[in-house]
Amino acid sequence: MVNGIKPISSRSMAERVEISLREYFAQKSFKPGDPLPTELELAAALGVSRNVVREALSRFKMLGIVEAKKKSGMVISNPDIVGTFEKVMTPEIMDEATLQDLFELRLALEMGIADLLYIHKTEKDLDELEEIAAREMKEKDNNFRISNEIAFHSKLYEMTGNNTLKRFQSLLLPIFGYVIKLEKKKVISGKVTHQDLVKILRKGTVEDFKEGMLSHLQPHFDRVRSFKK
Amino acid sequence: MVNGIKPISSRSMAERVEISLREYFAQKSFKPGDPLPTELELAAALGVSRNVVREALSRFKMLGIVEAKKKSGMVISNPDIVGTFEKVMTPEIMDEATLQDLFELRLALEMGIADLLYIHKTEKDLDELEEIAAREMKEKDNNFRISNEIAFHSKLYEMTGNNTLKRFQSLLLPIFGYVIKLEKKKVISGKVTHQDLVKILRKGTVEDFKEGMLSHLQPHFDRVRSFKK
Repeated sequence: MVNGIKPISSRSMAERVEISLREYFAQKSFKPGDPLPTELELAAALGVSRNVVREALSRFKMLGIVEAKKKSGMVISNPDIVGTFEKVMTPEIMDEATLQDLFELRLALEMGIADLLYIHKTEKDLDELEEIAAREMKEKDNNFRISNEIAFHSKLYEMTGNNTLKRFQSLLLPIFGYVIKLEKKKVISGKVTHQDLVKILRKGTVEDFKEGMLSHLQPHFDRVRSFKK
Repeated sequence: MVNGIKPISSRSMAERVEISLREYFAQKSFKPGDPLPTELELAAALGVSRNVVREALSRFKMLGIVEAKKKSGMVISNPDIVGTFEKVMTPEIMDEATLQDLFELRLALEMGIADLLYIHKTEKDLDELEEIAAREMKEKDNNFRISNEIAFHSKLYEMTGNNTLKRFQSLLLPIFGYVIKLEKKKVISGKVTHQDLVKILRKGTVEDFKEGMLSHLQPHFDRVRSFKK
């Protein structure tokens, strides 16, 4: 590299407008509901074409940061964290390292929600969870078992009372299927079953539950251990 | 609602093109590196203007799903999960319920990484962690203490060897500051200090560590309990 010469930015115009608008939003302390200048006004202020402004605003709309209102034009909006995550969650085109990372992230959450669960769980929740666990004992069909497996773990997240967490985990579900498919392995459950977990949630301490969940997920953790970098 | 009449979709053209292209990518089983048709070809196939196609492609570029290559035009790319999350992580315009949810998600991760930590930790990691913990005992400056607090917890994530997890947690850091600021409360640490946690990581079991971390985060969990919905 020649000393003193910096490379010219390779960012597209839309990217540069996006960055400028982010700075503008922050500087003006915009809150959800606050109106934005029009496309034309923004284009004039930025010295770019209206098409470029529209492209950048389209990105903000996708993130939920900007919303088009029928009469009042564009306004700032509460960004849609999970919805955006959903848009980028495309296991079929992700590389294996990322899939593996997300698989572990999911495992960490599965273990990590125990304390939140014990703060929020109710008798009604436990009855519902017990019903899901009981159903799987009766059915032999594999597709049913998979959907029931999902129902059980999703219910656990729901019991935390945390909507973002619940939606987030549901987006990570395909990762499990995908990682297992890549390795052409069958899912094997640990020694502690869903029914055991329900019993622990009813009578056991949060420490008992953490131990039970670890045992339930043991095959997955063994897998992580076997892939140790 | 009049029976038999469905409301006309209120999606923008860019949104509709985005959805069509997603279906097309999936149907063609595109992999990273695969070339895409040109904007003109896509516009003709979809029967829309080139501007609308550019707007939709711009969204995919932001997600890292599509990349513009200097000579070969646009290609499919490995989506940038964490980078996208970063774009939507704007605590200043998020509503309080979402902030609270993300705060809890962060707590769940903090607790949940214990097993991954015990699989991946090395002596070298522990030496570095010990150094970070030792530094904070010497300094009284508040800004230094905060950056050291961040350094300690970030190092823990780094020790999991999971790059996605590490980047993800760093994006959740501002949430802690923001939630605490909203409540005008000071950060209080639990009884177990960073130095205690290092000692446990060296000599203790993973169960000891989980107990230690829970005690370290106790004030945060008390906060969650006090906000129980």
